[in-house]
Amino acid sequence: MYAAMGALGLAPSGQDKAFAAPRSGDFSLTGRAAGTVVILGAGVAGLTVAYELGKAGYDCTLLEARERAGGRNLTLRGGDRLTEAGGATQEAGFGEGVYFNAGPGRIAQWMVTLDYCRELGVPIETFINSNAQAYVHTSGGTVRARTAKADMYGYVAELLAKATNAGALDRELTRDDRERLLDFLRRFGDLGPKLDYAGSPRRGYLRYPALDGGTPVPGPGALHDVLAAGTGRSILNDFGYDQATPMFQPVGGMDAIVTRLTEAVGADRVRTGAKVTKITNQADGVEVVWDGGRIKADYCVATLPPHVLARIPHNLGADVTAALRTPVPVAAGKIGMEYDRRWWELEDRIYGGITETDLDITHIWYPSYGYHSERGLIVGYYTTGPEAELYGALTPEDRRRRAVTQGRKIHGDKYGKGLLSSVSIAWERQEHIQGGWVRWPAFDSSFTLLQRPSGRVYFAGDWLTHLIAWQAGAMESARAAVTQLHQRVLSSQ
Amino acid sequence: MYAAMGALGLAPSGQDKAFAAPRSGDFSLTGRAAGTVVILGAGVAGLTVAYELGKAGYDCTLLEARERAGGRNLTLRGGDRLTEAGGATQEAGFGEGVYFNAGPGRIAQWMVTLDYCRELGVPIETFINSNAQAYVHTSGGTVRARTAKADMYGYVAELLAKATNAGALDRELTRDDRERLLDFLRRFGDLGPKLDYAGSPRRGYLRYPALDGGTPVPGPGALHDVLAAGTGRSILNDFGYDQATPMFQPVGGMDAIVTRLTEAVGADRVRTGAKVTKITNQADGVEVVWDGGRIKADYCVATLPPHVLARIPHNLGADVTAALRTPVPVAAGKIGMEYDRRWWELEDRIYGGITETDLDITHIWYPSYGYHSERGLIVGYYTTGPEAELYGALTPEDRRRRAVTQGRKIHGDKYGKGLLSSVSIAWERQEHIQGGWVRWPAFDSSFTLLQRPSGRVYFAGDWLTHLIAWQAGAMESARAAVTQLHQRVLSSQ
Repeated sequence: MYAAMGALGLAPSGQDKAFAAPRSGDFSLTGRAAGTVVILGAGVAGLTVAYELGKAGYDCTLLEARERAGGRNLTLRGGDRLTEAGGATQEAGFGEGVYFNAGPGRIAQWMVTLDYCRELGVPIETFINSNAQAYVHTSGGTVRARTAKADMYGYVAELLAKATNAGALDRELTRDDRERLLDFLRRFGDLGPKLDYAGSPRRGYLRYPALDGGTPVPGPGALHDVLAAGTGRSILNDFGYDQATPMFQPVGGMDAIVTRLTEAVGADRVRTGAKVTKITNQADGVEVVWDGGRIKADYCVATLPPHVLARIPHNLGADVTAALRTPVPVAAGKIGMEYDRRWWELEDRIYGGITETDLDITHIWYPSYGYHSERGLIVGYYTTGPEAELYGALTPEDRRRRAVTQGRKIHGDKYGKGLLSSVSIAWERQEHIQGGWVRWPAFDSSFTLLQRPSGRVYFAGDWLTHLIAWQAGAMESARAAVTQLHQRVLSSQ
Repeated sequence: MYAAMGALGLAPSGQDKAFAAPRSGDFSLTGRAAGTVVILGAGVAGLTVAYELGKAGYDCTLLEARERAGGRNLTLRGGDRLTEAGGATQEAGFGEGVYFNAGPGRIAQWMVTLDYCRELGVPIETFINSNAQAYVHTSGGTVRARTAKADMYGYVAELLAKATNAGALDRELTRDDRERLLDFLRRFGDLGPKLDYAGSPRRGYLRYPALDGGTPVPGPGALHDVLAAGTGRSILNDFGYDQATPMFQPVGGMDAIVTRLTEAVGADRVRTGAKVTKITNQADGVEVVWDGGRIKADYCVATLPPHVLARIPHNLGADVTAALRTPVPVAAGKIGMEYDRRWWELEDRIYGGITETDLDITHIWYPSYGYHSERGLIVGYYTTGPEAELYGALTPEDRRRRAVTQGRKIHGDKYGKGLLSSVSIAWERQEHIQGGWVRWPAFDSSFTLLQRPSGRVYFAGDWLTHLIAWQAGAMESARAAVTQLHQRVLSSQ
């Protein structure tokens, strides 16, 4: 049996088995040296490159145009300031212990990000990505996720059981199949003895069972009404391979990863406020000009967003420029709203998780940390594409006002009360980043071209992987660039 | 809209709104006094009774037959000893920070247990009750939960789409319904353009997408094979209203609730090693004899398990005895196994959650705490009924041996390696408890009889609620007894 499991991928295996990190001993007997590397961008990709190359003694310098390292891995706390290109500066007024992950907020179990958390000593905890107690809101109504799920599954099971019993699937099913399917459907939909769906304790209660059997949530509505409400769609959000429950987050804020990476790399290697203005590939190295000087190194790893990198003069050729211009930046925005009390826990009995809506706020995230503490921060919208552009075009005050107006449709008046402070980010308006992430029209030759070096210049970033918008993409890409670069140095004359 | 939400139970409401805790001011103007109460059993029910009555100044004494308070809320750590009736004594050899919740291990969001955690300052964290990355094991095979789910949902969606398109459900569905249903099924099953299921990224990967699209888990098998494997059943475990994701646990062990309740009550009020031998209801109070003396109090609250209480001589009448004998004790057992490394995280990429099996171990729980630390403790079986009796009848050594043999069928050889120490509990063999919980043949007049006092003797425990085996049941029942008792005292002459 265990042998068969190996074939099925159940035996020990890791996402990162293929990666052999550079080691300090790699050069000891070769007479070669690790050399110098200039890294453009001190986001997660750039820091990971420096961290891994540093293990073998490479002398890395990171040039970061922004005032702090981390890139989109940005956690805002009380006193932090956020300025938009051509826009206002916001200052977070959050209380002690309250933070807002303005960029990435969650990590899947299989992602290499968790390996770095382990290696770097970043403590992790659960990020609640799916919550039966959260709401599903559509123009057709607002119900708990558990109710929406029970009703959709109940009716799907009933319909399929009916069709099966009516013989409609006799060509697809043997007699054994039919029995097994009906047994599954009975459980899946919590069907009654006649294989009908007439509600279920799974739908939840106004008053949960205790001394008596409790008071169930009224319903269910008829099949037609459940379908028309359109709440079924929103119960599928954790079905994806990258969104499945459970997910994780660093304790105390996502930027713990940046902090520990920077410490490991050496903060003195990161030059912030350094905007690159020219990249020249040469026979014996790479020269990089930035707005405060120039630097020459044996190699360069460019981890800037492709649309930003494409605008920097270089001598890497027109095909590189064209490839860099291929992926399309996508707008993305979030608002963090701190309340003076955790009404979602106290009154809605929602501990973490996400309410799904068909409003322009799309989602409301409840915090997966600080349970039962006094204050708390919810993410009042997490938008991408057109909805992100809509919110991004507003002033911070108007974004908050709109988010509150929308959230009141779900949570009522309390959503507008006790809101202590808020900060919103529109990633497409963040200088030197200018987008939440990118979309490749196709993973074509432009994509693979940039996965290889151009002369002595390497590229890295989530945008060079199929894990776009995930830190794991930045890290995997960094590892690939490191592997190529290190192999080249080890095998060079 | 918000008004409608109130009717649907979405507006602010709590499980415990009906409970008005006794207050110190309740007696200030009445000339009455709080009086004395003897509480039989210092489990969660007994401690909650003492805690709530203590708020109004009642003088409570708890008699606990076992050597420590908490009852089934039992967390074992290194150095703790566990003795079975007529059996061996085990000593837990667990390392620093490793613990084993031998009794309750999880709390649902809506449960009053969380209110007590908040009120008592017990920090909580997520208990991962469902994990896409965990396994489903049947005699038909072993697959990741995410794979089993994707395949069952995929085929269910395909079959129902086929039947719908073939007109088999035209009597049930309007044209609009049909379109909406098909739209849902397409998403629900991740169906292809012809509404067929041919696998999905949701099934998971041998090598997850990164630089390329990754290597999907082979499959899916044909519908017949998926149904025959019988793995679908196990993906429904978090569908119940009491098991839905997310769930919670106290940080550091479930007994934090006991510790804080005991502190709040006053440890000097809890007399351990005190076995009750007689209960006499009198006109002006209750006399309780225990193996070290006797005590007279105005009232008594008996929170022992009904089958234990039924054997103590009393003068409460034959109907009380008969009612106490009605619920049937259910066996339940768990084994905590500490390993020298967290191979489930390192090799299986499973962070918390539960593997479901059709073996006699039933479940394997991976720890929802201590991620990335050196050692870790898994629950190698959590059995009830016949499987619990099977394991309970074995010596602790044989229980571990059998659990390892079964677990190897899922995890291979590593399951038998690096097992540092283990402790198993068979609740039906624990003195003064003698069962995991009870089952009422029906919630009939015996049940309701004991929800009311017999003279000056009240009853409380999870067994007097519809939340049997949950601490929330013990707490809700305690509150009900407290409310009745306090009202009686306040309204007495």
